[in-house]
Amino acid sequence: MATASNRIRRITGDGSDGWDLFYRAKDLIRQGVPVTELTIGEHDIKTDTSILDAMHAAAKAGHTGYASIPGIPELRAAVAKRAERLTGVSTGPENVIVTPGGQAALFAVHQFVGDPGDRALHIDPYYPTYPGTIRAAGLQPSSVTARAEAGFEPLEDDLEAAAAGARSVLVNSPNNPTGVVYSEATLAGIGRVAERHDLWIVSDEVYDSQIWSGQHLSPRALPGLAERTLVIGSLSKSHAMTGSRLGWVIGPAPAIDLLWDLSTVSNYGIPGFIQDAGVFALAQGPDYETRIAEPFRRRREITQRVLAGQKTVRAAPQNGAMYAMLDIRATGLSGEAFATRLLDGERIAVLPGESFGSASRGHVRLAMTIEDSAYEDALRRLMDLAARLRREADLADRHVPAQVG
Amino acid sequence: MATASNRIRRITGDGSDGWDLFYRAKDLIRQGVPVTELTIGEHDIKTDTSILDAMHAAAKAGHTGYASIPGIPELRAAVAKRAERLTGVSTGPENVIVTPGGQAALFAVHQFVGDPGDRALHIDPYYPTYPGTIRAAGLQPSSVTARAEAGFEPLEDDLEAAAAGARSVLVNSPNNPTGVVYSEATLAGIGRVAERHDLWIVSDEVYDSQIWSGQHLSPRALPGLAERTLVIGSLSKSHAMTGSRLGWVIGPAPAIDLLWDLSTVSNYGIPGFIQDAGVFALAQGPDYETRIAEPFRRRREITQRVLAGQKTVRAAPQNGAMYAMLDIRATGLSGEAFATRLLDGERIAVLPGESFGSASRGHVRLAMTIEDSAYEDALRRLMDLAARLRREADLADRHVPAQVG
Repeated sequence: MATASNRIRRITGDGSDGWDLFYRAKDLIRQGVPVTELTIGEHDIKTDTSILDAMHAAAKAGHTGYASIPGIPELRAAVAKRAERLTGVSTGPENVIVTPGGQAALFAVHQFVGDPGDRALHIDPYYPTYPGTIRAAGLQPSSVTARAEAGFEPLEDDLEAAAAGARSVLVNSPNNPTGVVYSEATLAGIGRVAERHDLWIVSDEVYDSQIWSGQHLSPRALPGLAERTLVIGSLSKSHAMTGSRLGWVIGPAPAIDLLWDLSTVSNYGIPGFIQDAGVFALAQGPDYETRIAEPFRRRREITQRVLAGQKTVRAAPQNGAMYAMLDIRATGLSGEAFATRLLDGERIAVLPGESFGSASRGHVRLAMTIEDSAYEDALRRLMDLAARLRREADLADRHVPAQVG
Repeated sequence: MATASNRIRRITGDGSDGWDLFYRAKDLIRQGVPVTELTIGEHDIKTDTSILDAMHAAAKAGHTGYASIPGIPELRAAVAKRAERLTGVSTGPENVIVTPGGQAALFAVHQFVGDPGDRALHIDPYYPTYPGTIRAAGLQPSSVTARAEAGFEPLEDDLEAAAAGARSVLVNSPNNPTGVVYSEATLAGIGRVAERHDLWIVSDEVYDSQIWSGQHLSPRALPGLAERTLVIGSLSKSHAMTGSRLGWVIGPAPAIDLLWDLSTVSNYGIPGFIQDAGVFALAQGPDYETRIAEPFRRRREITQRVLAGQKTVRAAPQNGAMYAMLDIRATGLSGEAFATRLLDGERIAVLPGESFGSASRGHVRLAMTIEDSAYEDALRRLMDLAARLRREADLADRHVPAQVG
């Protein structure tokens, strides 16, 4: 085979970092072993029939040819209207471009913010595709640690220390994997750093419909930041449409025009019947999104209730998104070792915090994506395992002879 | 607004090159002016109901979540089987990755073949997104002219002269815009140049089901070339599924694995229900593809018949694809000037050859995408205009006093 580009050979980076757990769980399931699957952020419901029927009606009505590349006007307008409702920022169709999913939007904006060799910041812990998305654009990813002790929110000083010479900072609130919703103070700090170093803020807000406490704030809504913020959105989480691959970027109109040039050569638009389904889905309004989010709200309450009154397992501030990030450091195990014990002993599959960067080591992430009682049962078994491991660890500690100093 | 990357600002290149004709025609249509539209390569039929029903059934059956990123195994296998049938080259699912359309496949392979600053060859005349696709990857496009006098097939010497230091050569047979099907000799020449300079051959074969004379040959089928050839395919033209955005790359398995890494960060897979529809479409077999191609075969015959017995307008060797590339140089006009006269005087919209590079200047391209008798009528009116213009030109020539040398 002739030679492949360095760019494409570097996308995957250095190693698996705990993803073998995910593949082992998949293998077990394939072999017919009953495994409780809490790894992937996908609803336990399918896309609603009414949305699928709208899609089919559009296709049968003839919307099967090339569709407008930046999105049909109705869809761009509907996305703009939703953004305006959620953020208060004046937003028109010219501020929106539709992409084949949120991941494609992340990819596109990193093609936009910098040139090969430039640096792009992201926060650790992170959604696992982030560093590869940045590397695929030929950019150098630099991670800024958001410490567990700081509630997994990044500190202005830490951002400032990394920002010189960078082109962008990728933030994600509500956050996957932690479930943290950034405070206004955190976002204002991000904004100050971005202004000082002329960075683009890439704000991945795909969980903006899943808020359990406090409220969602977009950096785009902070004074002066709209001109340097590119918001990533999608119908995947808000409307249980993961498989429809309908995402978008919201930003300044001149940026959207340049992203349109990129879409012309990178995908030539997304299916018209999916766009029509998107218009239908958004027309269902905020109540529909609340309804889709409801199971995760209930399971977040279950998590809080089950965790109350013990100190072995602690949850990260769980204010949004469909995950529980649990601190299991009291067991003395790494996230990876704990997840392995949980899969081997209890047939429960979770992802080690190490899969999401170094800041969430000693944690495991649960996707709250199974039926309530099965979720509660799995969580209780996880807690029991943690408690057993902690007792063993405490016992072992007591049996170690005191060191003579 | 903060600064956008050079890469994205350079995608569009230098100018419109005759595309204002296209936009003027669109404007007229929007204003209600009856314009005969022969600009865009899109079938005058919609995607068949049976395919749309298969898609809907898959969606209702629950295939609405994340789908396998490189393509579901059934689809990769069906694409491989089709390639094997058409080319005789042994092809397995591991040689196939599914993309959101053929354009996305072109984009992906140019991310694959080289790094920013590298050179990538393409043939002139060309499909208009080619140079921008190459530039979007940070590569430098170099065009190799395929002369009208050589039947729009590129010559080995011309390729050789451009190849030193390049990473790839993008070829397209059956060809858009010319309708030419490359001979085995031409493809062998391309292969020799690629081997001498260790180039990837990017072979855009999206018109492989539209062959009117001779036969389609893929460079991947020539001895020794499979290991350096990446074939671009799509269901758009073969199955009238332009709007479904279902394309693919076929190539060596290690290349496909790297393209998988890219898909993970650039689109995260395509909708499962569209993949199922693709499996259904491909299961209809070669007769279905022949049926979809049939109207263009008829209109190509109309073109040949109407052009016979006159010498004002000549057609490029029209052996495949859904276009007629007509040489109107005998009128003394450029393609752009002729297309303007045709739109203004006859309300017929065609694209000037200049929209596809410099090698096809003095030509106009007709997409044979309207009903047979309307197509024949438009073609006859075009011929009448050409004949009138030629008479005027001849007359003017005679009235110019002979130069005294």
